[in-house]
Formats: sequence, C-alpha cells, structure tokens
Amino acid sequence: MRTVEWYDGKVRMIDQRELPWELVFVDYDNYTDVARAISDMVVRGAPAIGAAAGFGMALAAQQFDANNREELHRYLEEAATVMKDARPTAVNLAWAVDRLMTIAKKPSNQRVKDIRKAMLREAQRIADDDVAINKRMAEYGAELIKDGDTILHHCNTGSLATVDWGTALGVVRTAHQQGKRIHVLLDETRPRLQGARLSAWELMQAEIPFDIIADNAAGHFMRTGQVDIVLVGSDRTAGNGDVANKIGTYKLAVVARDNGIPFYPVVPTSTIDLSLSSGDDIPIEERSPDEVRAPFGHAIVPDFYPARNPAFDVTPHRYVTGIVTENGIVYPPFDLNLRRAVEGTLLPPPPRAPEPEEDPFAMFDEPLDTTE
Amino acid sequence: MRTVEWYDGKVRMIDQRELPWELVFVDYDNYTDVARAISDMVVRGAPAIGAAAGFGMALAAQQFDANNREELHRYLEEAATVMKDARPTAVNLAWAVDRLMTIAKKPSNQRVKDIRKAMLREAQRIADDDVAINKRMAEYGAELIKDGDTILHHCNTGSLATVDWGTALGVVRTAHQQGKRIHVLLDETRPRLQGARLSAWELMQAEIPFDIIADNAAGHFMRTGQVDIVLVGSDRTAGNGDVANKIGTYKLAVVARDNGIPFYPVVPTSTIDLSLSSGDDIPIEERSPDEVRAPFGHAIVPDFYPARNPAFDVTPHRYVTGIVTENGIVYPPFDLNLRRAVEGTLLPPPPRAPEPEEDPFAMFDEPLDTTE
Repeated sequence: MRTVEWYDGKVRMIDQRELPWELVFVDYDNYTDVARAISDMVVRGAPAIGAAAGFGMALAAQQFDANNREELHRYLEEAATVMKDARPTAVNLAWAVDRLMTIAKKPSNQRVKDIRKAMLREAQRIADDDVAINKRMAEYGAELIKDGDTILHHCNTGSLATVDWGTALGVVRTAHQQGKRIHVLLDETRPRLQGARLSAWELMQAEIPFDIIADNAAGHFMRTGQVDIVLVGSDRTAGNGDVANKIGTYKLAVVARDNGIPFYPVVPTSTIDLSLSSGDDIPIEERSPDEVRAPFGHAIVPDFYPARNPAFDVTPHRYVTGIVTENGIVYPPFDLNLRRAVEGTLLPPPPRAPEPEEDPFAMFDEPLDTTE
Repeated sequence: MRTVEWYDGKVRMIDQRELPWELVFVDYDNYTDVARAISDMVVRGAPAIGAAAGFGMALAAQQFDANNREELHRYLEEAATVMKDARPTAVNLAWAVDRLMTIAKKPSNQRVKDIRKAMLREAQRIADDDVAINKRMAEYGAELIKDGDTILHHCNTGSLATVDWGTALGVVRTAHQQGKRIHVLLDETRPRLQGARLSAWELMQAEIPFDIIADNAAGHFMRTGQVDIVLVGSDRTAGNGDVANKIGTYKLAVVARDNGIPFYPVVPTSTIDLSLSSGDDIPIEERSPDEVRAPFGHAIVPDFYPARNPAFDVTPHRYVTGIVTENGIVYPPFDLNLRRAVEGTLLPPPPRAPEPEEDPFAMFDEPLDTTE
C-alpha cells in the first residue's frame, strides 16, 4: 500500500485529511486534480509530493490527445506551471516536474507514444527510488535500536510522508521487523497534529506499540529515564549538519542532549544541501495562525486572538548525535562526512554508535551549570 | 473582578470552562454546589481552590439553621469531608478547610452567630491574603522586566489561577502597569490549553500585547533571540529549588538555559515545601489520556488509541535562575535562601539579577558539547 501510486491508468492517493478516521483512496484522471490534491494537502511530505507531481505529469501526457511532439510539449509546459504552483515552496515538487520535462524533451523520445511511456517510467522510478532509499536508511538506522528500546518520535515521517516505509518511522518499522521489542512515544506535534493523527495510525496498522503524548510531556519522559533514543526527520539539512525540521524538533534535541539521549535525524541525501554552510540560511516558513487558534476547524480561542505559527525550526548540529542516510550513518565532523555521504564515499563502513553509558554513577554527571 | 468572592450572601465564581468564549459568573448558595464546582473545574488553580473552599465552608455555616454550637459543628464536620473530597490532591483545599474548622471550634466563638461571622471573616482573609501576596511578588518580579522585553509564559498563572492578579502573570500585569512596553508569548499549554484559553483571555482584558504559540514553537523564538525572560508558576517547590509545575515547564527551562535566557518561577512561599529535599520526591499526577486524545471533546484520534498524560514535570534547580516570592527574589544557593524566604529573613535586600550579557561575542560561547 503506497501513499501515491499509478493505478489502472490513474494517480491514486491516500487522502491524508481523512486519517485516522477513514482510509480513503482517491483516483485522479486529470493532472489539474492532482495539482489541487497537492495544494489541498490530500498528500503531504516532501518525497510524497515529489512522487505525486511526477505521476501528475505522466498523467498529463496520457490524458492529452496530441497529434505530435510539439503539441504535447506545449501542453506539458502548461501542466508543469500548474503543478509547480500547487505548493510553490515544496522543493521536491519542482524537482520532480523538471525531471519529467527533461524526459519529455529527450531527443530519443520523438513519438508521442514514446514520450508517454518514458514519462510514466520516470515517474515510477521516482516513486520506487524513494522506497528503496528509505529501506536502506532504515537498515542503517535499525542498527541503533536495541531490543527493549523506547523511541521518541516527532511529527510524521512514515509511509504517509514518503511513498512508502518512511524515514525515521522507517527505522522503527525495520527494527520492529527484525523482532526487536520496541515502544514508541509519539509527540502529537501541534499545531497540525501529524504525530497523533498520522504516525499513530501508521503504527496502529503495523502493530507497533506506542503512546501518543502532548509535545510538552517529552521532556518529562526523557528526564525520568524513559527514552533511549530520539528519531526525527528533516526537511533540509545544511552542510554543517544543522537540521531544519518540523517546529518543536529543536526543543527535543536540546533536552535529549542534556539527558545524554542520542538524537538522530533520518534524512535521504537528496535533502542535504551542501551549498548551505549553516542552518541560519534556511528560511522559516510562518503558516496561518488559524492552525494554532482552530486546529482542524475546532476553535480553541476567538479568531481575532493574535497567534504566531512558525512551521519549522533549526536544530544546530552540536545537538545532533548522528545523521542516518541511505549511504550510512554520518557522525561529526559533519562538514566533512555529510559531503562523503552525499557523494557516496562515506568510507570505511560507518562507525557504530558509541555503546550506551553503563556507568551507574553517570546520572550524577550534571551538565555544565552556569547558574550556581 | 475576582475569580472567587463572597457576594450578597453567596459564593460567586467565574466559570472558567466557558472562557474565552463567555464571561459567566455563577452564584452558589449551598456548599455542596461549591464542592461540585471545584470538582468540575469551574474554578482551578491552587490558590483559587483554597479560597473557594474557604468561602464554601463559610457558606455551610450560614446555610445551616443550627440551634447550638454542637449542632453546627456536626454539620460543619460533614461539610469539611464533602469539601475535601472535591479534589483530593489539592493541598490548598484541605488547608483552607482546616483553617476554617479551627476558627469554628475556637473557644472564644461560642454563639452560632459568632461562629458564622468569624468563619466568613477568615474566608475573606484567605482570599485577601492571596491577592496581597500576589501583588508583593509582582512588585519584586517586575524589577526583572525591562522596557521592551518579550516574556515567554507557560500555562495560566493569572487572576484565574489565584483569587486576583496572579503569580507569573501578576508580574506581567505589574510591569505593564509600570508603563513598560512588553510583549508576551503564551505557550498554548497542551493538553488543557490553559495558556491559549485563559492567559490569552486575561491579557486581552488587560490590553497587554501577546501572541499565542504552539508549545513546540517556544524553542524557535528563544534560539532566534526573540525572548528576554521566561516566567512560570509552580505548584510545589522543593527545599533545594526544584520546581514542579505544569507539564512542559522542564523543556522550557532547559532550552532557556542553553540560550542564556533567565528562567524565573514566581511562587508564593506557601507552596515551598522545605521538607522535600528534592523534586524527585514530588509525585507526578497522570491524568486521563482523553485530555490528549480529545481536547475539550473534539477527538483528534479514536478513543482506543493509547496515550499518556503526565500533568506535571519537575525542573531541577540547576535550570532555575531565581525564584520570585512575596518576600523577595531567591537566588542560589537555594537550600539556604529558600529557607530564609519562607522565614521572611531573606536579608539583605534581595540581590539584583545579573545584568544581561552585552558581549557581542557571547553568541559564540557554545554550551558544553560532548558529541564532537
């Protein structure tokens, strides 16, 4: 079961707005409907949006009854604009659309029929690659998980945020599949509650034990020794290892470090941006205050109450224990090793995470204290 | 306008469950209804509950048509049991009821009429004392607030949690009254959203500028230099300065320290428990998971999804910059100075908070890093 797929000549998606209440599949036979589904957040999560856009472009090629290559190209140019406008800030969307346009214009594809076939194959490849990359990340990441571990997780990073399997939740799936007995604490992840609504639904399906918690409670569980590792995703990772991710990630990372709990973002190398020397260069999207004031239409305060709603935050690399990629786990120095991961030369085989501290007196090692 | 007061022979309360939508006053002429109002959370917040219980006992004395002292005492004993059962874990409730019973049994109060009068006077004193203490705390606390400051605040600590004025929000009120231009970031405070619903309503009434934020966003605002001071309340403070407060407080404190932002709980000395040598001795109440799954009846996940809901957390004293009390601001060493604050011998006049760091290179002083 994939979040986005090509099914019987149409683009099929899970309508994520209906979860966790109902599992609804929607089939689209027109690319403009695919674009609308993206902007209406039927589908969300960078990789899933990329795959949806790829299939949307393939669909545009199928649906248009073109007489020749040029006619088809003109139609596809229009479709590309509509598709990119669906969510202008989604980097994967533009990337997938451009990739499909390159195929459409490849000199070897001359006949309309060939272009259609090549575009569908390329869209399929984008989706398949995403799943393959997730599974490789999950294999590496699962090495970090011990039998009996409790994993703290933020937002949704599972099948629903990708095409299938997921990034951080992909690690959880693989560890579970390996027979490790694990328990997951799911941050509900205000304001949009992706943790409570989507991650919980996924773990329910996968029969992986979990508890939903208010984001505020994560600190209590960490401080009282009830968390072994923190796993999160990342929308964009800078060359120095600074990580931009769903709002609230930064607080988790700081508290994890203060409690000696390892903190690992799980990120495909496609989202690592070596051109950014630090996370401070990543702009933070501020979304509608209505997400704070009225989650899913249920107002908690009058609509004229002022609210702020930054959607992402940046976690400086000093809080990051390691970064799980499909090419291995990256440890500091990040500037050097992230480059190697992106280039696929992270050699020798990724070092293992340090063994957990067994020293019974370690609990008395308080972090640096400047107040006393 | 008080949260709880004696009005025309009845106990009048603001029904906090109706806020921020409507300001509803409810008048009770029977002590059993007062007890029910406490258990139904018409009124909440330790000091407000204490005052309500005091007035409830005074009301019991008025309402019962006793022939003699002994008859009245028997009736009051019953009332005391009912009142204490309303919220068994609320320390202030039992304390106020006992205080009223002591007055009722005072040898100098022999006539039913005298007992009634003395009890009402005592209940009034409990309420008045709370307001006076809050105003004294607010005077001390306001010294910490500079013109132009942005204050980060958690939960509700205002008039609605007390009888009037408030603890941490009392400091905000006084700073505003002093003409300081301040801005308040209000953690919405999941799961019960006291920040969004109650604190925002109070600041709206007081015309103090604010923004509601998802609790997850507090870290982002702190890291990007948009917060000058963090003010919170405390349900119970241990003798070493460890602070038990609404869930989420601990995360705030850790992140504040990592960003060099002062973190001050504002607490009346009545809630400082010198018999507790550390916060680890404070039991953490776990409330219904329905508060997480279905805030105010609006389900975000099916009711069989597992959730955990610890209501409080403990902030170790090493994260606490200082503790504002009605007898002055307490700085480390807390074990020594909290005792002095409780005894009212915090002398010489409380030291001023250290001047804020002006060193332009301070941002490069990274906290202790064990990962690199």
